Amino acid sequence: MEMILQPVDKILKLGTGIFEAQGIPQERAKFIAQLLVEASLTGHDSHGVRYYTTYSDRIKEGHIKVGAEPEISQETENTALIDGNWAPGQVTAQYLMEVAVEKARQGMVSAVGAFKCNHIGRIGYYTDWAAKQGVIALMFVNVGHPSVAVHGGLGEFFGTNPLSVAVPTGEAKPFLTDYATSMVASGKVSIAREKHEKIPLHWAKDKDGNPTDDPLAVRDGGWLLPFGSYKGYCLQFVSELLGAVLTGSRTGPDPDRIPPSTNGVLAIAINPEAFVGLEQFRQGADKLFAQAKAVEPEPGSRVLIPGEPEWETKEKRMREGIPIPEETWEDIVKISKELGLDLD
Amino acid sequence: MEMILQPVDKILKLGTGIFEAQGIPQERAKFIAQLLVEASLTGHDSHGVRYYTTYSDRIKEGHIKVGAEPEISQETENTALIDGNWAPGQVTAQYLMEVAVEKARQGMVSAVGAFKCNHIGRIGYYTDWAAKQGVIALMFVNVGHPSVAVHGGLGEFFGTNPLSVAVPTGEAKPFLTDYATSMVASGKVSIAREKHEKIPLHWAKDKDGNPTDDPLAVRDGGWLLPFGSYKGYCLQFVSELLGAVLTGSRTGPDPDRIPPSTNGVLAIAINPEAFVGLEQFRQGADKLFAQAKAVEPEPGSRVLIPGEPEWETKEKRMREGIPIPEETWEDIVKISKELGLDLD
Repeated sequence: MEMILQPVDKILKLGTGIFEAQGIPQERAKFIAQLLVEASLTGHDSHGVRYYTTYSDRIKEGHIKVGAEPEISQETENTALIDGNWAPGQVTAQYLMEVAVEKARQGMVSAVGAFKCNHIGRIGYYTDWAAKQGVIALMFVNVGHPSVAVHGGLGEFFGTNPLSVAVPTGEAKPFLTDYATSMVASGKVSIAREKHEKIPLHWAKDKDGNPTDDPLAVRDGGWLLPFGSYKGYCLQFVSELLGAVLTGSRTGPDPDRIPPSTNGVLAIAINPEAFVGLEQFRQGADKLFAQAKAVEPEPGSRVLIPGEPEWETKEKRMREGIPIPEETWEDIVKISKELGLDLD
Repeated sequence: MEMILQPVDKILKLGTGIFEAQGIPQERAKFIAQLLVEASLTGHDSHGVRYYTTYSDRIKEGHIKVGAEPEISQETENTALIDGNWAPGQVTAQYLMEVAVEKARQGMVSAVGAFKCNHIGRIGYYTDWAAKQGVIALMFVNVGHPSVAVHGGLGEFFGTNPLSVAVPTGEAKPFLTDYATSMVASGKVSIAREKHEKIPLHWAKDKDGNPTDDPLAVRDGGWLLPFGSYKGYCLQFVSELLGAVLTGSRTGPDPDRIPPSTNGVLAIAINPEAFVGLEQFRQGADKLFAQAKAVEPEPGSRVLIPGEPEWETKEKRMREGIPIPEETWEDIVKISKELGLDLD
């Protein structure tokens, strides 16, 4: 499968145009495209520009309401519950994190949830944004689209239910952990399918419960496995309980789900000023990362700080462009033409 | 290695006596012994009654200060930072969780940390206690005793850095996830050593960086691995950053550490009343667990809800007694005799 390299500016302008042409106000269209481009830039292609077409389908089907605004349905000084009103998920999630950071600034700790929320994309964007405002952020997200088996069980049950944690640093690059609590995000299997590649045998099982390296067998009745065996399975539950059960979002396996893919979201923000103070926290984090980087690596390996692979990939792709599988690019070209956009 | 079955009452009375004879007030001595017995009852032998002798050593060496009281060193309406004053760790951790729950009752969400804190034992005790008070509790703990390699690196760096989450339920048994972010707790390797058993090859490496099944090779210059590869390694960092860097506890690998083993602790408590409400949360959790239990199991397997293995083991051991390795029992007998306790 051929990969097509696209410059960042071009793919961002195209995404903005695609969303704007479908009724999303320009600033908001650009924000959504930016977040998808940022996911591709950091190497999270599973959450990247391939969503240009997916979101377009969801707009057509009425699942993403282009003019809707998220709004607070209930709040206290340190908490809020946000009704996403099926606005674009990125808009809801960014609003949620802004509320969480503001409440943590005023009240030192906050918890903010959202329901009726569309796909919010790469969740590390929001926690990383919060860390840049000087607060520690945790995010637990339910994916209301079953694709992962329970530990010891057959069939799809949980979503890929990611979690993310980001903390403020000083001189060090931002610390960011952001991943699906399944072996991999569903999108990574889709990308293997788009690239006509095999997947590792320990990621998934086919419809008969046998390990499979065929991404088509995962789509056709198979399922993903939780990462880290029973321990990762526990975190699948945690993201489901905090992201969905607590916020009143869709939970559990629902074969008749409308819309087909939702996110239930909970963010927790902690202000270091209530503890050792922000400056001491930054210094402590920097020191810890430096100590870890000074560890002798295993032969043929190297020690990475969480967030570092993303930074490295971003620097490379900013220079070289974003590699996109040929079929994905053709889909983007097709919808761009349908919408009458200029591709040059 | 022979295992000796001891009835719960006897081992609890003995532990209370051991700690009381060393200057810990009776009620507090009983509380500490109770938590260690509870760990053994739930199958977490690594955090169980084997600590009768370890804690006794630490009292003798002055690391555990028998009469010290934890106290709040700074607080806001929704946060607190507690100076453990090197009191017994269980006393500090229970106080911390009581403060966290009270603040979450009043202010809907709280974050409470502790420094100068001795080993707090099985952390699931505290989150489970909070869940029984109707709040969701998360706990991130740094173990200031390096035993786990960084991903891709050689040698001990992080502690086993556990995390735990517990949530209120309705009719369902309590949901509890509670584990080391290493493949296993260090105590599980010690128990294999005490039982003269091998360990699985994927748990640890020897001093030369080779996989080993020999618990002695782990002690003699080897190290544990994080669970779930890179994803678990990220959580090692999270427990270190939240438990230690944020609270001003010892962090990073320190070969000259005094006292030899510390815990840095952060608890987050969330009141469901600020979201869907406690009753709806209980019902939602119950429904999710029932759905998971209804999943068809893999052949030869069964589906367990996090917390269920602990409940099953506890029921069995309440009936049958607690199995203790012969050498561990001999150590307990020895110190009991030294302290002039009645063993019958």
